[in-house]
Amino acid sequence: MSSPTTVRQDDLHLTIEQALRQRLDAGLAAASAHGEAFAGLWRTVAEHATGGKLLRPLLLLDAHEALSGGDLHSQAVDVAVNLELLHYAFLLHDDVIDGDLTRRFRPNLIGTLATGGDDRDLHWARSAALLAGDALISTALLGFARVDLDAALRTRLLDVVEGIVLETIAGEHLDVALSHGRSASDLQTILAMTARKTAAYSFALPLRAAAILADLPLAAEESLASAGRHLGLAFQIQDDLLSAFGDACSHGKDDFSDLREGKETALVAYARMTSGWAAIAPHFGSSALTAADAEQVREHLRACGAEAFAEGLVAENLDAAASVLDDARSRGIVDESISALVHAFADRIRGRRS
Amino acid sequence: MSSPTTVRQDDLHLTIEQALRQRLDAGLAAASAHGEAFAGLWRTVAEHATGGKLLRPLLLLDAHEALSGGDLHSQAVDVAVNLELLHYAFLLHDDVIDGDLTRRFRPNLIGTLATGGDDRDLHWARSAALLAGDALISTALLGFARVDLDAALRTRLLDVVEGIVLETIAGEHLDVALSHGRSASDLQTILAMTARKTAAYSFALPLRAAAILADLPLAAEESLASAGRHLGLAFQIQDDLLSAFGDACSHGKDDFSDLREGKETALVAYARMTSGWAAIAPHFGSSALTAADAEQVREHLRACGAEAFAEGLVAENLDAAASVLDDARSRGIVDESISALVHAFADRIRGRRS
Repeated sequence: MSSPTTVRQDDLHLTIEQALRQRLDAGLAAASAHGEAFAGLWRTVAEHATGGKLLRPLLLLDAHEALSGGDLHSQAVDVAVNLELLHYAFLLHDDVIDGDLTRRFRPNLIGTLATGGDDRDLHWARSAALLAGDALISTALLGFARVDLDAALRTRLLDVVEGIVLETIAGEHLDVALSHGRSASDLQTILAMTARKTAAYSFALPLRAAAILADLPLAAEESLASAGRHLGLAFQIQDDLLSAFGDACSHGKDDFSDLREGKETALVAYARMTSGWAAIAPHFGSSALTAADAEQVREHLRACGAEAFAEGLVAENLDAAASVLDDARSRGIVDESISALVHAFADRIRGRRS
Repeated sequence: MSSPTTVRQDDLHLTIEQALRQRLDAGLAAASAHGEAFAGLWRTVAEHATGGKLLRPLLLLDAHEALSGGDLHSQAVDVAVNLELLHYAFLLHDDVIDGDLTRRFRPNLIGTLATGGDDRDLHWARSAALLAGDALISTALLGFARVDLDAALRTRLLDVVEGIVLETIAGEHLDVALSHGRSASDLQTILAMTARKTAAYSFALPLRAAAILADLPLAAEESLASAGRHLGLAFQIQDDLLSAFGDACSHGKDDFSDLREGKETALVAYARMTSGWAAIAPHFGSSALTAADAEQVREHLRACGAEAFAEGLVAENLDAAASVLDDARSRGIVDESISALVHAFADRIRGRRS
C-alpha cells in the first residue's frame, strides 16, 4: 500500500507533467508557424523532454507546499515547469559538448536525429540540439518572467534565476576545462564545479524560488540556498558513487561510462592523492576498458579509501544541509515545516540506490 | 562637414556603446564570482561583443525617437542593448554550427580561443562559445523582462521577443538543413529562411519594439513588422550581392567565402534555374576555388541574370517596405515621422556599398 506521502508525490508528478505537456504543446503550435521541419524538431524535443523524474520541480513544489501550509498555487506550478524546461535545455547543450548519444539506455535527442551515424549526420543532429536548447532556454526564462507575481517578487525571482543560470554555465565551463586537462583536477576544484554545475540550479534554485513565492525574508532564502548547495553536492557525489559501484541496470547509466570517459569526480580526485592511483590511472579514460578492468578499478577505488571518503562527503553534506535549517529554525528564520522537508529530502538521498 | 543626421547617429552610437559596456561590465562582475577562468572567458566575450555597427539598436532608437517626438527614453536604450546582446549570442551559436573562425578579417571568439588549432583546441573553443552564447541569451532575455514598463506593455514586448527568438532559431535550423542538403534549395525556401533567420530579429523586432515602447495600436505595430520584414530581406539579399560582386576589403568578408562554402542564397537559387548553372556548379561549395575560378563564376552569375534578378528583389522589397508604411499613413495608422524613417532606411540600404 502506498503511503500518503507517496500518493501526494504521484499527484504532484502528474500535475507537473500535465503543465509541462501543455507548455510543450503551446511551443509546438508556435513552432509550426515556421515550417514542418521545425515543427518536427519540436515534436521530437517534446518527446525527449517528458518522462523524466522531475526532481527539480518536485523539490520546488514540496517546499512550496511546506511554506504555504499545504496550498498549491498556480504560480508555483508555472515556476516548476520552467525549472524542468531549463534543466532539459542544459542537458541538451551538455550532450552537444560531450558528444553523448544516449541517456538512460535510450538514444538522446542527438542519437535520435543522427540516423545515419556518420560525421555529417552527427553535425546535423548536434546543430539541431544546440538550437532546440536555445529555444527551450528562451521559453523557460521568458516563462519565469511571466509568472504572475507582483513586481518586487518577480524582480527578486529573475535576479536569482539570472545569477544561477550564469553559475551553472560557469560550472559547465569548468567541467569542460577539467575534461580537457585545462584545469587542475584537485578535490577543491571538483567540488566547486559540482556546486556550480549541479547544486545551484537543481537544488538551491528550487528552494530559493519556493522562498520567494512565499515572500520569505532574505535570511530564510539564504538558509535554503545554503541547504540546497549541500543537498546538491551530496546528490552528485552519491550519483558518482552509484555510477562507480552501483547496479548499472537500476541506475540507468552505461556500465562504467564515467570511468571510460575519464570523468573527473570527487571519488577520482581523492584516489589521485593515494598510492592506489598508479593501478587505476592506466584504465582511467580508456575507451578500451573491459568489464574485468572496471571490476579491478572498483576494487582499487575501495582499497585506496576513495569510496569511504566519498560516502563520508555525502553524509557530511546531508548533515550540513539539515543543520543549516535546524540552526535557521532555532533562530526563528524558518519554521518547522521547511526544516522537516529538508530533513526528509536528505533522508531520501541517503537511502538512494538508483 | 557632417550633416546633423550623421552627428545624431554618432551620438546614438556612443550612447548604445556605453550602455552595452556597462552591461558587459556588470556581467563580468557577476562572472568573476565563479572563478578566474570564467571571468577570463567573459572578458574575451566582451571584447568581441563590442565594436560592431550596432545596426539593430540604432534602428530601434531611430524609430523610437521618430515616435517619441525626438525624446530618448532610458527604456529604449535598455531594449537597444538587449537587442545587441541577443544578436551577438546568435552570431556565437551560428559560428559554433558553421565552424567559422573569423569575422570581418579578425579571429572570432572561437578563433581567438582555439590557440593551438587542432581538433581538441577547436572543441574547447566551440564549447566555450556555446556556453558564452547561452550566458548572453540569458542576460539579454532577462534584460528585456526587466525593462521598466507597465505590466501590459512588458507582456506585449516579451510575447514579441519570444515569438521572434523562436522564429530566428527556426530560420537557422532551416539554414543548417539547406547546407546539409536536407531541404530543397529553391528560391521560396531561401527567402523563407532569410525572413526568419535575419529579417525577423534584425529588422522587424527593433521596429516592433519601438512601436510597443510608444504604446502604438497593434495595427501600427503590424505595419512596422511587415516593413521590417521587407527591409530585412532587402538587406540580406544586398549582403549576398556584395559578397559575390562587391569589394571584399570594404565589405569585410573573405574573398568569395560564400561561394567557397556553398552558401545557399537567392542569387544561387535563381542561377540554379538557368542554363548558366552547369558552369557554376563545379565551383559551388568547392574549397579548392581559386580567384580566377571565382571571377568566372561572377561572370556566369551576371550572364545568367542572377545578379539582375537579385538586384530586382532588393528594389522590390525596399519599395514594399516604403509602400506598407505609406499605406498605413494614408489610413491614419502611423504618422509621417515613422514612414519618413522607413523611407530613409530603405534609401540607406539602396546605396549600401559595404
